[in-house]
Amino acid sequence: MTAHTVAPGGPHQAREVREDVDDLVRRRVPGQSLEAPFYTSQEVYERDLDVVFGQNWIFVAAAAEIPEPGDFVTVEVGAWSVILVRDDDEQVQAFHNVCRHRGSRLLPERQGSVGNIVCPYHRWTYGVDGKLMFAESQPPTFDKSCFSLRSVHVRNLAGLVFICLAQDAPEDFDAVAEVIEPHLRPYELDKAKVAVTYDLPEAGNWKLVMENNRECYHCDGHPELITAYFPLFAYEAEDITPRLKPLYDRYVKAGDALAKVRADHGLPVRDHRELDTRQVGFQLSHLPLDGEGKSFAPNGGAVCSKLLGSVKDAAFGDLSLHMQPNSWFHLLSDHAVVFSVLPTSTGTSTLRTTWLVHPDAVEGVDYDLDALTMVWRATNDQDRALVAGTQVGCTNPGYVPGPYSMVEDDVEAFVNWYVTRLREAIA
Amino acid sequence: MTAHTVAPGGPHQAREVREDVDDLVRRRVPGQSLEAPFYTSQEVYERDLDVVFGQNWIFVAAAAEIPEPGDFVTVEVGAWSVILVRDDDEQVQAFHNVCRHRGSRLLPERQGSVGNIVCPYHRWTYGVDGKLMFAESQPPTFDKSCFSLRSVHVRNLAGLVFICLAQDAPEDFDAVAEVIEPHLRPYELDKAKVAVTYDLPEAGNWKLVMENNRECYHCDGHPELITAYFPLFAYEAEDITPRLKPLYDRYVKAGDALAKVRADHGLPVRDHRELDTRQVGFQLSHLPLDGEGKSFAPNGGAVCSKLLGSVKDAAFGDLSLHMQPNSWFHLLSDHAVVFSVLPTSTGTSTLRTTWLVHPDAVEGVDYDLDALTMVWRATNDQDRALVAGTQVGCTNPGYVPGPYSMVEDDVEAFVNWYVTRLREAIA
Amino acid sequence: MTAHTVAPGGPHQAREVREDVDDLVRRRVPGQSLEAPFYTSQEVYERDLDVVFGQNWIFVAAAAEIPEPGDFVTVEVGAWSVILVRDDDEQVQAFHNVCRHRGSRLLPERQGSVGNIVCPYHRWTYGVDGKLMFAESQPPTFDKSCFSLRSVHVRNLAGLVFICLAQDAPEDFDAVAEVIEPHLRPYELDKAKVAVTYDLPEAGNWKLVMENNRECYHCDGHPELITAYFPLFAYEAEDITPRLKPLYDRYVKAGDALAKVRADHGLPVRDHRELDTRQVGFQLSHLPLDGEGKSFAPNGGAVCSKLLGSVKDAAFGDLSLHMQPNSWFHLLSDHAVVFSVLPTSTGTSTLRTTWLVHPDAVEGVDYDLDALTMVWRATNDQDRALVAGTQVGCTNPGYVPGPYSMVEDDVEAFVNWYVTRLREAIA
Repeated sequence: MTAHTVAPGGPHQAREVREDVDDLVRRRVPGQSLEAPFYTSQEVYERDLDVVFGQNWIFVAAAAEIPEPGDFVTVEVGAWSVILVRDDDEQVQAFHNVCRHRGSRLLPERQGSVGNIVCPYHRWTYGVDGKLMFAESQPPTFDKSCFSLRSVHVRNLAGLVFICLAQDAPEDFDAVAEVIEPHLRPYELDKAKVAVTYDLPEAGNWKLVMENNRECYHCDGHPELITAYFPLFAYEAEDITPRLKPLYDRYVKAGDALAKVRADHGLPVRDHRELDTRQVGFQLSHLPLDGEGKSFAPNGGAVCSKLLGSVKDAAFGDLSLHMQPNSWFHLLSDHAVVFSVLPTSTGTSTLRTTWLVHPDAVEGVDYDLDALTMVWRATNDQDRALVAGTQVGCTNPGYVPGPYSMVEDDVEAFVNWYVTRLREAIA
Repeated sequence: MTAHTVAPGGPHQAREVREDVDDLVRRRVPGQSLEAPFYTSQEVYERDLDVVFGQNWIFVAAAAEIPEPGDFVTVEVGAWSVILVRDDDEQVQAFHNVCRHRGSRLLPERQGSVGNIVCPYHRWTYGVDGKLMFAESQPPTFDKSCFSLRSVHVRNLAGLVFICLAQDAPEDFDAVAEVIEPHLRPYELDKAKVAVTYDLPEAGNWKLVMENNRECYHCDGHPELITAYFPLFAYEAEDITPRLKPLYDRYVKAGDALAKVRADHGLPVRDHRELDTRQVGFQLSHLPLDGEGKSFAPNGGAVCSKLLGSVKDAAFGDLSLHMQPNSWFHLLSDHAVVFSVLPTSTGTSTLRTTWLVHPDAVEGVDYDLDALTMVWRATNDQDRALVAGTQVGCTNPGYVPGPYSMVEDDVEAFVNWYVTRLREAIA
Repeated sequence: MTAHTVAPGGPHQAREVREDVDDLVRRRVPGQSLEAPFYTSQEVYERDLDVVFGQNWIFVAAAAEIPEPGDFVTVEVGAWSVILVRDDDEQVQAFHNVCRHRGSRLLPERQGSVGNIVCPYHRWTYGVDGKLMFAESQPPTFDKSCFSLRSVHVRNLAGLVFICLAQDAPEDFDAVAEVIEPHLRPYELDKAKVAVTYDLPEAGNWKLVMENNRECYHCDGHPELITAYFPLFAYEAEDITPRLKPLYDRYVKAGDALAKVRADHGLPVRDHRELDTRQVGFQLSHLPLDGEGKSFAPNGGAVCSKLLGSVKDAAFGDLSLHMQPNSWFHLLSDHAVVFSVLPTSTGTSTLRTTWLVHPDAVEGVDYDLDALTMVWRATNDQDRALVAGTQVGCTNPGYVPGPYSMVEDDVEAFVNWYVTRLREAIA
């Protein structure tokens, strides 16, 4: 008997996969979950870093985290470390967080504020525009202009900061931004205040975290979250029984009301779904909320007394934005929550969640931090447990891919987008 | 100079071994310990999981751990997780512990009791017979009968549960069971009570744990254990000096008495040694005990006042059973101790030890837990230190295989059995 | 787009490197720092252990650590463990720390004293000369003389113990020893007393620790250290401004005075620099000290009231010895500090620092331990942080090699020596 009579995957899948990432990609079967090595093998993880995180636009921060010139955050993407800094023209710049001399990390902190960027090792000094200003004991032939910090592509989309680590960034970001920006504009996120940022370590491959976010088939496990929405996630039209009809009618009515409110603001109302039909895949939806219809308070009420930006009506629904490969966003009248997933190893990731409120909102006066963050802290933690259980499950050689249900179409769209990127890279 | 002028093995053995597990197996030299990579390389570890643990019958639990329908334990073998559950017909069933939908682990606990097996992710629900009973939001074409839990081969040998993870299990298990079962029957282990189970993490490759168990050349290091036995382990007939003669005579006499007692019970007395002469390798011996000759109390006395099953005479000796590749057992008149070794990485393993007593025995009344478990808790811990010292020693490039002494024949039999399995897989 | 449009190195560099250590070595560019995989890839780490630590003379201990027959220390070099023991003829012997039977580690402790070396597993017993004296239960054919401990090449250079793990050790050690020994002799380190040994874990590849030691371009970060020296490290002759002239003149004067003192002792005064011009690369310098010019006390004063060996004048300067690949030494009139760097993984190392004083010096009377060790405890810890920042920086795919400044010539000499060893091994 050979090893191959063992269940698919098998304890030495990493070995087999070494030569076979391309085969894995080619033989992927639509309509069902991916084979185990996509979640467990070092080779696929490295391929993901190269082809997905190394080649695509990824969401990494809210521009509101660096409001002033010299303010910076550092972002870890796999082994990459990138400095996001607001320059003297108030533009967001992105640089590799590594000295041009002998490679010391420049800024070890998660965030802070600097005049110049000074290497802790030999004091090489760079401006916030990345230019090398000073380096001691150099020969006359030394040309400072050849040793600026290496820049990274960056876009600030209405206050959401995206980077691309490739030398040539995908070109359709601007086209997508043109569609999305008018929807985001009224919330004025670039000027918002960061209420808090939490990093949640996930014991699962980054794709399992994303797949978990892309369906509500498991939302029975999210009691805090589902009270805000109309609990019709797992239902198709034909599932609407007489018992559900009143709820369904209320849902349709709330949707119409929301469309009217947005029209009154002169805002676009149309939803967009291009999750797997372009490289910068996204989905934008305006979701009505249940109860008071305002925000995430248990009764559907507001969690902050000041509305964001130019929003005038508290019953503004939930602008839900999903972007491939690593982010999602919920914008409500009184606050926004922005999410990014970043891989840290084959079987681990970090989910960063940032809550944004009106720049003048005062904690303890206009909002209570626990109440503001309660729904998504609880939801993230519930999902963390489900993702960890799936990672350990997929690692089991007894795992075989199973079929997606009728309500997991966005999961499949995510996987389609992902596999398409890998196929393009192979081609 | 090339790397190969360094001592055998060398710090990059894992690299060299990658292409060479087959060569390692082919060039194994009988009569001496294995080359270092057998204990230190990831490649050999993966081969062991495939060829040894993935293809052979391995002991994983006492049936007494799951006495009632719905009772389950989960067992980790490398990356595998297997559910052992007592079904409604009181038979022991074994399933891969992974959902047929998107691969979530089904039962995270080490043990418990369930009505049905419900996936924590999307609530797919399976019976204890493994059949899928319910899955929400499926299209009409969905056929539940195609998504039963994947079963694993399982045998309950007189209360000892063995599984085989291969698609086709070795056929000679039943022939071996026929030889062993009559010896085990009087102890009625299937009906026994679990006094306690301990998991001991070992800082050594699983084979070092097994090799350590297969010889008593090191038994000077087991003061608690050897008092129970006749300390003649390291001696050949020609080693019996005049000083040892009285002890030796006492040993022969006790052996005859034990044979008589077992004959009076109408039980088989013959020993069996097929450690490396068949795939289901085993050794069964009836060992007389010293002192009172009953059990593991310091004076050879009993450690539980109720005898197991239908055993009538406390001086029933020690039925010692060794099975390849991962288990050994000591059955005495008043209790039984069962051991399984499971690999967790190249250099680590888990030794699980379970103590069984009469179903009606009451802790604190019929037995004291510390007294019951003292000898093997001490012995396991002493062996743990010896195994850890050997793992770190074999990892040293300065290690070269050495010769087995005259009293390490069962170690060599274990290695013979092991190498034979690897050779068969190569062929 | 392929993975190679990502920055050099890239998250899967370990993968690429697998086939390419030879290419990395061949394409090394003089005058700039090494490519990332030299510091981050498992393949290079294994090559370093084979070719650098497995083939060259490395400093591992002060002979003063094992003053009496039977005294031993154990040294870990990668996966190797070596016993250094003083034999009955008071010579330092070196053996692989592994039993010739089944590979158990023999001496687990970092140091101690033994009569014989007894294996903890099966009691095989060896003399401190490595000869097997006893092994139980062996057949008559067993020849003890075939199972002596495997010896390791060892040299005691005026109290500094070097080993070579290769079967054939580089031959030029003795020629280098002849040059160095007369400089070391007056300090009589073999008879010295060990005041203390500290092991400092470094979060960096061993080469980053060495490179950090080989330049003072970063010495602004060492306030405690530079007070002892003339702060002219980063200066070339043409950098001596009028403001610096007085300091520079003082420096030249102190140098002349030191040369005279040593001449009066009838000692060699010449410096030697053969860092990359032979296999046993080294640099020996006599550095004048500032202030009182005696030792590392803040004012340049002594830190021990008894002078080492036959040294008569406290103003004896600093005999600074650098040896490739892993050590450096500072010998002063009143104490000596010896340093060895040993790799523990691709990205980690251990820096062992030992302080030596006169054999009759009494702690609390002749020296205060904190005062004796303050300068290098502080300096080591400052360097630890710089090394860790460089390791994490080089791991960033955004890293590209940068140019050495005019004052990093000893760093380049270290890298030249290192790359030459790897090239020789390839050839």
